[in-house]
Amino acid sequence: MPKHEFDFGMTCGGCSGAAKKVLGKIGVPEDQVEADLENKKLYVTSDKTVDELIAAVKKTGKEVTFVKTH
Amino acid sequence: MPKHEFDFGMTCGGCSGAAKKVLGKIGVPEDQVEADLENKKLYVTSDKTVDELIAAVKKTGKEVTFVKTH
Repeated sequence: MPKHEFDFGMTCGGCSGAAKKVLGKIGVPEDQVEADLENKKLYVTSDKTVDELIAAVKKTGKEVTFVKTH
Repeated sequence: MPKHEFDFGMTCGGCSGAAKKVLGKIGVPEDQVEADLENKKLYVTSDKTVDELIAAVKKTGKEVTFVKTH
């Protein structure tokens, strides 16, 4: 499955947990979401489109920007 | 307008900012949202129903519980 990299405006463990929760709601298992808090990066391994992933993560009320697919 | 008190699982300023942003999306001005980070309390002064406010805040992916109306 492709691994998508996003810049995500998280500033604490609660922020990354929120991203995992909203992605879980659209069917992305928690172990396919990797949050690098220090570098404010979110990596999502999923067959879902980047647009679907962005729409879900935006619901958290935080900024999210697609960087690239690995 | 009634002021509604919620317990909200925020752990940093980014978390409270996210709550303000999602409430803004349903038309609650930022100055009617008060976040007490230390006590994990969110106060929302609004004519919207508690259910509407909870639905919006839940989108952040964080826990929110209605406490009382002041």
